Amino acid sequence: MQQAEARTQPQTTGPQNTWPQNAWYVACTSAELAVGEGAKPLGRQICGERVVFYRDGEGRVAALEDFCPHRGAPLSLGFVRDGHLVCGYHGLVMGCEGRTVSMPEQRVDRFPTIRRFPTIERYGFVWIWPGDPERADPAKLHHLPWAESPDWAYGGGLYHIQCDYRLMVDNLMDLTHETYVHAGSIGQKEIDEAPVETLVEGEEVITRRFMEGVSAPPFWRMGLRGAGLPEDSVVDRWQICRFNLPSHVMIEVGVALTGQGGYAADRSVKASSIVVDFITPETETSHWYFWGMARNFAADDAALTDTIREGQGKIFSEDLEMLERQQQNLLRHPDRRLLKLNIDAGGVRSRMLIDKAIREEQGA
Amino acid sequence: MQQAEARTQPQTTGPQNTWPQNAWYVACTSAELAVGEGAKPLGRQICGERVVFYRDGEGRVAALEDFCPHRGAPLSLGFVRDGHLVCGYHGLVMGCEGRTVSMPEQRVDRFPTIRRFPTIERYGFVWIWPGDPERADPAKLHHLPWAESPDWAYGGGLYHIQCDYRLMVDNLMDLTHETYVHAGSIGQKEIDEAPVETLVEGEEVITRRFMEGVSAPPFWRMGLRGAGLPEDSVVDRWQICRFNLPSHVMIEVGVALTGQGGYAADRSVKASSIVVDFITPETETSHWYFWGMARNFAADDAALTDTIREGQGKIFSEDLEMLERQQQNLLRHPDRRLLKLNIDAGGVRSRMLIDKAIREEQGA
Amino acid sequence: MQQAEARTQPQTTGPQNTWPQNAWYVACTSAELAVGEGAKPLGRQICGERVVFYRDGEGRVAALEDFCPHRGAPLSLGFVRDGHLVCGYHGLVMGCEGRTVSMPEQRVDRFPTIRRFPTIERYGFVWIWPGDPERADPAKLHHLPWAESPDWAYGGGLYHIQCDYRLMVDNLMDLTHETYVHAGSIGQKEIDEAPVETLVEGEEVITRRFMEGVSAPPFWRMGLRGAGLPEDSVVDRWQICRFNLPSHVMIEVGVALTGQGGYAADRSVKASSIVVDFITPETETSHWYFWGMARNFAADDAALTDTIREGQGKIFSEDLEMLERQQQNLLRHPDRRLLKLNIDAGGVRSRMLIDKAIREEQGA
Repeated sequence: MQQAEARTQPQTTGPQNTWPQNAWYVACTSAELAVGEGAKPLGRQICGERVVFYRDGEGRVAALEDFCPHRGAPLSLGFVRDGHLVCGYHGLVMGCEGRTVSMPEQRVDRFPTIRRFPTIERYGFVWIWPGDPERADPAKLHHLPWAESPDWAYGGGLYHIQCDYRLMVDNLMDLTHETYVHAGSIGQKEIDEAPVETLVEGEEVITRRFMEGVSAPPFWRMGLRGAGLPEDSVVDRWQICRFNLPSHVMIEVGVALTGQGGYAADRSVKASSIVVDFITPETETSHWYFWGMARNFAADDAALTDTIREGQGKIFSEDLEMLERQQQNLLRHPDRRLLKLNIDAGGVRSRMLIDKAIREEQGA
Repeated sequence: MQQAEARTQPQTTGPQNTWPQNAWYVACTSAELAVGEGAKPLGRQICGERVVFYRDGEGRVAALEDFCPHRGAPLSLGFVRDGHLVCGYHGLVMGCEGRTVSMPEQRVDRFPTIRRFPTIERYGFVWIWPGDPERADPAKLHHLPWAESPDWAYGGGLYHIQCDYRLMVDNLMDLTHETYVHAGSIGQKEIDEAPVETLVEGEEVITRRFMEGVSAPPFWRMGLRGAGLPEDSVVDRWQICRFNLPSHVMIEVGVALTGQGGYAADRSVKASSIVVDFITPETETSHWYFWGMARNFAADDAALTDTIREGQGKIFSEDLEMLERQQQNLLRHPDRRLLKLNIDAGGVRSRMLIDKAIREEQGA
Repeated sequence: MQQAEARTQPQTTGPQNTWPQNAWYVACTSAELAVGEGAKPLGRQICGERVVFYRDGEGRVAALEDFCPHRGAPLSLGFVRDGHLVCGYHGLVMGCEGRTVSMPEQRVDRFPTIRRFPTIERYGFVWIWPGDPERADPAKLHHLPWAESPDWAYGGGLYHIQCDYRLMVDNLMDLTHETYVHAGSIGQKEIDEAPVETLVEGEEVITRRFMEGVSAPPFWRMGLRGAGLPEDSVVDRWQICRFNLPSHVMIEVGVALTGQGGYAADRSVKASSIVVDFITPETETSHWYFWGMARNFAADDAALTDTIREGQGKIFSEDLEMLERQQQNLLRHPDRRLLKLNIDAGGVRSRMLIDKAIREEQGA
């Protein structure tokens, strides 16, 4: 029996990509990857690639093409043994670099390798670099100070959404939708009325709104209570959306007792947090939406974390139908031009950064 | 931010249409469109077009392209406020002519318009004209005398069927299928045996059968009881199917005590009704089937209306699998010629009227 | 009304077929075809063809194209009357040769015929010849001696699997997968370690393994008990896989008390059986998997037959996800070369026979 010798190469970034390949994307949470003997790996499609994730003997994360070089079975149906990934079909033992380690009664040295993807585990997430491994630079990973500070608590979840990841970027960079999509929780009429400002600072797009002397919507009444402040206070409210490549949106949100400085007010008179959104493409028309909230009040209150997660999960689920149906409409009308209003500037500017990054890596 | 200025045009009728565009189709029942503040609109695809239906402040029906000119969200996910349709994503307020009325903090005068579709609400239905609005003529709407008379009662329902609407026309214009598909309710051997006659009178195709001295099948035993006649009577039975453009089939059906004149017998010795079928294309291979029955006996008996609706709904559901599986077979064998027997003449002639109407509007 | 006169021809075998057309395939079990007046026929796609199966007045099986020549309805929605298949739409009566027998009030002599497929009922199965009827030769049907002997018992089932039938052939001609896919029932480490031998004898591919002095895995502990032997015996175990065209795999499996001659040991000291696999293509990427087990111990023990069927059904269901996901992976990577190791030789040689048969019938 002859053995195939071709070594699979990383696919070059084609002109059809709608995302940068050379960037760190959130692939899963740390908790999604089990540790230890017999642990089940995780199969997930990221940026068009089917990937299998698992932890080796030291608990380090490995990410490989989800394709056994023997007969093409998905390695994600296998299991971890002695820190190696074992194919669940015929027992091929795969190493974390994509080289076959062993196979019962076989010489494996000329087996073709499979792609391995650089990963970093940090901030409670596993990050993957779907592009050229040679260019994978840990320094380029998004820095999240709140994730390293004991003053902050974080809770979040994951939704699988059937739309282009950029529609979610648009969604989050234009919060006027809160008044309509989330009328019962965080929406309020004053959002529409407050002037919106969009600016680009280096590789970051910022869209922000400040509302002064308003009443707090239901979600923020809960926030005020959590921060030990009267829930019926008149407040100053802010929303500062920050887009960073490849597809992360961090939104500083909060309310302060009115007239105390708003966003700049002392911690004792405000409830503030960061809405955390990692938006990872799966295919051209679907994505993984890692949503969550980091807060720097009552950081030790685990019950509050759960309450917020539940509330936020419900709110974010309200976007799903809208975005998926919007996607369907756009697929039916590929040539229809959409409006680009001032409120859309955040999304428009973010897409410009995305397009620039894609062009640059295609030129490189 | 620049604004798109293109005004969307009605799509010209392409050669691929299998239905006339310039005609009145039933889009929904009046009851499907809620009235008043906050009412949810109805999204439905008609003749290939995604349409949103709602009632304005005076309760008048409006029908628009289900596509918000801002970002392409479906307007059918929005709500009605002050008689206008509000997009549920970012609050764009759309007018019933397809022009944006307002949007929070925006100038909307140069927003692109969206298509509006002429509608008429009559006979308990909302009718839509999917073609050229300039040619929409209320006089062309199918006149239904029974729907305006207090001597008649009507009950019906709606099925969504995955087949070309013309297969349903064929089905209804050849009632020999009753003997096989509806053996337990309205089928009887004498249908097959009675000679069928098909004629074309102007724009109407008529297929008819008369059966004399037969026993009544279960459905008509119920009809005789409802009309206060002995259910085990020997009867004369008739079926007169009338096709009218674009895709309506009205079937006069009934039984009379035998020898009393049959179809022409006095009301006191017969039970008769009209099977009402509005067959509205959704796509090339699916349609909305509005079925019902109008009867001119016991018109005040609401319980009987319910009983008949339930019975008819059950009978018509028996056609669904057959038609959908027939469609699948035909799609697999697009070049196979089908037979055109005398019993198929009703469907064949109806399709000739349809084809002629399509050719004429494409030539126009 | 004119009548179509075209007679449908058997489709010539195109280059796209991945299976031989001129061969006997298992279509269904005898039990799947009801007998008698009003019996429902069975619709099933075999080798790309939609076929309707039923029994005529004498209980003989007929197989026809599942397409009524009248309007294309599936004949499988009809029923059997007076030994003929009656279309459930308009009552066309079809004969077992594909010629219309009658239709209410119609002359049918010029109706087009539909394809009929040669069938044989034998061994509890209905076999179909999807290719040229002229070449259908009963002598070519796979001979199954165990199915005709009172010393043997058989039990089995049917799975519908979404993968190329050849992936199932590969699966069954390389039993090293048992160690991984079926670790809890029939897998054991010694399978991997035993040398595998593959040979081709005429039109048969044989792959075999012998394991001496091993402990019996759970399934065979049950087999030993069933054969009246101590379940914790040290045993010699064998697996002899035989592939025959078009897609049948018979696997002689068993255990004997160690040192008594293994496969050749006397019946009194062994438990042995034949794993029976008929793998019938449905489409290029799906198949019908008729699995079962024939055993020549305790042949009268019907309860044991049930126990084995249940156990085997559970084991074989473990292959489903693996094979279907493997298929998806291969569809995503059509150009990826797979390895052909010594353990894969059985599948590789079987595919060579398949390819040769396809080439020969295309040349013919």
